[in-house]
Amino acid sequence: MQIALDAMGGDHAPEPIVAGAVLAVAADPELRVILVGDQAQVDPALKKAGGPHERIELFHCTQVVGMEESPVVALRKKPDNSIGRCWQLLAERKVEAIVSAGNTGAVVAGGFRLRRFLKNVERPGIAMLMPTEKGPCVLLDVGANVHPKPEHLYQYGVMGSLLAKHILQRSDPKVGLMNIGAEEAKGNELAKDTNALFNASPLRDNFIGNIEGRDIHKGVADVVVCDGFVGNVVLKTCEGVFEFMMKMVAHELKSVLKNEMLLGMQALQNLVARYDYHEFGGAPLLGIDGICIICHGSSKDKAIKNALNVATRYSNAHLNEAIVRELEHKVAVAS
Amino acid sequence: MQIALDAMGGDHAPEPIVAGAVLAVAADPELRVILVGDQAQVDPALKKAGGPHERIELFHCTQVVGMEESPVVALRKKPDNSIGRCWQLLAERKVEAIVSAGNTGAVVAGGFRLRRFLKNVERPGIAMLMPTEKGPCVLLDVGANVHPKPEHLYQYGVMGSLLAKHILQRSDPKVGLMNIGAEEAKGNELAKDTNALFNASPLRDNFIGNIEGRDIHKGVADVVVCDGFVGNVVLKTCEGVFEFMMKMVAHELKSVLKNEMLLGMQALQNLVARYDYHEFGGAPLLGIDGICIICHGSSKDKAIKNALNVATRYSNAHLNEAIVRELEHKVAVAS
Repeated sequence: MQIALDAMGGDHAPEPIVAGAVLAVAADPELRVILVGDQAQVDPALKKAGGPHERIELFHCTQVVGMEESPVVALRKKPDNSIGRCWQLLAERKVEAIVSAGNTGAVVAGGFRLRRFLKNVERPGIAMLMPTEKGPCVLLDVGANVHPKPEHLYQYGVMGSLLAKHILQRSDPKVGLMNIGAEEAKGNELAKDTNALFNASPLRDNFIGNIEGRDIHKGVADVVVCDGFVGNVVLKTCEGVFEFMMKMVAHELKSVLKNEMLLGMQALQNLVARYDYHEFGGAPLLGIDGICIICHGSSKDKAIKNALNVATRYSNAHLNEAIVRELEHKVAVAS
Repeated sequence: MQIALDAMGGDHAPEPIVAGAVLAVAADPELRVILVGDQAQVDPALKKAGGPHERIELFHCTQVVGMEESPVVALRKKPDNSIGRCWQLLAERKVEAIVSAGNTGAVVAGGFRLRRFLKNVERPGIAMLMPTEKGPCVLLDVGANVHPKPEHLYQYGVMGSLLAKHILQRSDPKVGLMNIGAEEAKGNELAKDTNALFNASPLRDNFIGNIEGRDIHKGVADVVVCDGFVGNVVLKTCEGVFEFMMKMVAHELKSVLKNEMLLGMQALQNLVARYDYHEFGGAPLLGIDGICIICHGSSKDKAIKNALNVATRYSNAHLNEAIVRELEHKVAVAS
């Protein structure tokens, strides 16, 4: 498995990114990583992380897309940026996967520019794993497609189900549509039309209908489908509530616990380690011909290591082949 | 102050609703409540709650809109339902405000059917108070208007600012637009057009631009404006994350705390009492000529008491008069 890693992408790049690569190759003897970035910055970071390493090489490039830059403008004005170079390596089949914690919009825009989508995929979507009471579920799209058609959301249902099946090992994944109420007639036009499409599709037996925001974390669905605007807001809102709650709980515990205060704080740290949205292993951009894993901008070494691992599991599960097969069947029957 | 309270609305109505009315009149000697509902069910509930009370009277009606019923169908088929009767009392000026924990869609649809909007208001919106690190902020719309125009969102900014000013005592409320990134060019068409409208409006000095989901709970804005679909999903997602987190924290604390376990659980209960989304005092439907407070379906007696109190504060602050004055000025200049 050979993966191109955007060494320049992320709030604190390149150090934690490069350190994540070192952790990943140490844990997986089959893994080779190409660090894509500015040699003058990447080399010292690699040294600091314990490198060089025989299965980590450098692809030098001179430019970086800033985290707040306009993706389309940046990709045009900076032809030698690390995100574009990662996509180029994928397009040339020099790597099987790319991983970036950089500007999400630029990663998606770079992939859309190549237009190398899997057969029958109309628009790729970003799939995020969310914690629930019954283990993780797949939420998609979380930001690649802010003006989707019902057909796009249906395809997200098909692709998300395969992710749940092959990565989360759910034998019979249930798909829910994010909406503002349970009845079929609820919601905006997109939600109503999408609900009707699912109910008339080959996925209908696995479609549990509309679900509401409060249902996500209860784990009522293995796959939650929504438009990219709503999904992105949901994802970041969850992150915000999580951080808010952890602060409030810590404050409250400090005011009541006495001798066991350190134990209480330890309990909170265990929770952060388990659920922190920053520590998640990255979100696949589903529907691309290749593997693209998008990480949180604040990703630390462990999160990058996890993301590289997700890319490997994605490859080993032959997920893209499964998506092509399934869409061939399920789109033909639905349309 | 005379308020019509939908005694039949809510997951466990009428008991907690009626008990809330009894708590509220006991706390506020100026308050009179008309319980709107089926006498055969309301009378025993009132007795159980310590009534009858001289400032609580009954308006008997025979029908109820179920929590999961289609609002439009139910309002048409059940002319003597408690929500419709509340609106009727408001329209006839027999009460100054109505409060309901019933089917939110039906409460909104009932208000829209009357078409008694404040002057210059194009579409009313539901405003919810959300907890943040810097005290509550106003999130609107959370479900009245799922196909808004930029002008509607602008009006929500104006009305939400007045709520923040008069109810939350913010002298100079900042307004943020819910979006998926900070730059102006981010988001769907609605978000882009709304951003441009705010920036060209008399509210521009108080408009802090786009905010993301993770900013809500940081308290970066006093007023967060969004379309009703997104707002409803955000609200319910927050509720879901809150419940999920409280369960996970409790579980974790139980596994590490020993002698101070009860103290730890007490700390969590304090937090629930402070932040539980079920306990919030209700959300005003802003833009209606009159006062309408919508409560969570699971509201208990304390939440109903709080909602009646919110209605009274809303009235005492002369919020509707302020909205009419402000829109006269701010819509004229913006268009």
